[in-house]
Amino acid sequence: VIQQVYSRIPQHAEILAKELGASGISSVTRIIRDADIYIFAIADDELYKLKEWMFTTSRIVVHTAGSVSRDVLKVLTPQYGVLYPLQTLKKDIGVINGIPFFVDGNSDGIRQQIFDLAKSVSENVQYADDETRRKLHLGAVVVNNFSNYLFALTEQYCKNEGLDFKSLSPLIAEGAMRINSYSPAVLQTGPAFRNDLSTISKQRELLQQYPELLRIYELFTEIIASGQRH
Amino acid sequence: VIQQVYSRIPQHAEILAKELGASGISSVTRIIRDADIYIFAIADDELYKLKEWMFTTSRIVVHTAGSVSRDVLKVLTPQYGVLYPLQTLKKDIGVINGIPFFVDGNSDGIRQQIFDLAKSVSENVQYADDETRRKLHLGAVVVNNFSNYLFALTEQYCKNEGLDFKSLSPLIAEGAMRINSYSPAVLQTGPAFRNDLSTISKQRELLQQYPELLRIYELFTEIIASGQRH
Repeated sequence: VIQQVYSRIPQHAEILAKELGASGISSVTRIIRDADIYIFAIADDELYKLKEWMFTTSRIVVHTAGSVSRDVLKVLTPQYGVLYPLQTLKKDIGVINGIPFFVDGNSDGIRQQIFDLAKSVSENVQYADDETRRKLHLGAVVVNNFSNYLFALTEQYCKNEGLDFKSLSPLIAEGAMRINSYSPAVLQTGPAFRNDLSTISKQRELLQQYPELLRIYELFTEIIASGQRH
Repeated sequence: VIQQVYSRIPQHAEILAKELGASGISSVTRIIRDADIYIFAIADDELYKLKEWMFTTSRIVVHTAGSVSRDVLKVLTPQYGVLYPLQTLKKDIGVINGIPFFVDGNSDGIRQQIFDLAKSVSENVQYADDETRRKLHLGAVVVNNFSNYLFALTEQYCKNEGLDFKSLSPLIAEGAMRINSYSPAVLQTGPAFRNDLSTISKQRELLQQYPELLRIYELFTEIIASGQRH
């Protein structure tokens, strides 16, 4: 049972608390002291300033960050760990069950308790120490944040050129689906991969008004084409 | 009814022909002269060398390339056009029905016939002239080929670091799914977007052994972060 939701911004605490049947608070002093587990789903920067919270406990405290050591929680409690979902959880997320969770704890017992908690929301739970989590987080940044940025720049380009970005959705969906059956290494296609210089040169021209896309286009084309040459 | 499948490589022609109940040929002279429509699904470079085929007809000829003008077919026939699927069609493709096809023809009548042909395999068919197709193809290259390359580099990184690339699949699937409901511009997250310098610096360190990923990481981080500043 989730008892309290804290946020510096009272409305934010209220919205989520209401959804969870919990009470929303926005003052650290109102945090109850006897919860089984405290989840700090806060920005990485804030995790490094935890001693300013003046909040200590003997209970389990976890954070949800990929790239932050579990030991950052040491200042609050002797029992701590990590509950890292390999996906940004948002209110409107469809299914939480398949999301991989990577968990850790500062003892076998704590680790097991956090594992069980994660298991109650997702069937896909594994242990991962600080270094493994850091490395996974980097992989997630590349496949998710960077590909999303490609989509965002392309959406802008489509708008400017009078094209419907939605036309590209089936292609994006297919690309995401295929890697379940094939290694992306064998799925590579495109002008750079074929070393199709005439198409590359025409596409660079089309990007003259899009300096960011052009830089990305040139870097990918160079790297993909040079990978083909050796 | 598909009557013949031509490929320079006899086995390739045979494999596809067998699947389609057609006959496979590997000699241009064996191409029958009375088909209603000829589909040239060949490399862009080859399309520019069509007159070497010594094959002319009064029937409709189409090519399937995004970035090649329909007029390249003029040397073969007075009736020509384009049947461009916005996706690489592969044997094992699940559902062809949702794939966007962009069609064109050198007269209203031809265009309509090619449209009808495309409509028989996909409900998602639109007209697009040479320039529109070129622009769409560029968008497809960015969202598909480049994101696939991000996946391929990350798979390699995961292998080297002893991580399971499959852990990232749900994240990739979710990213592809979310853009059906939201503009990618509002979905952007990650260290660069948050201007989280400490994570960025740790991630750059993790990439010291991956020069290609590092260059991509640095370019995306720079562009995403600078977008946040104005």
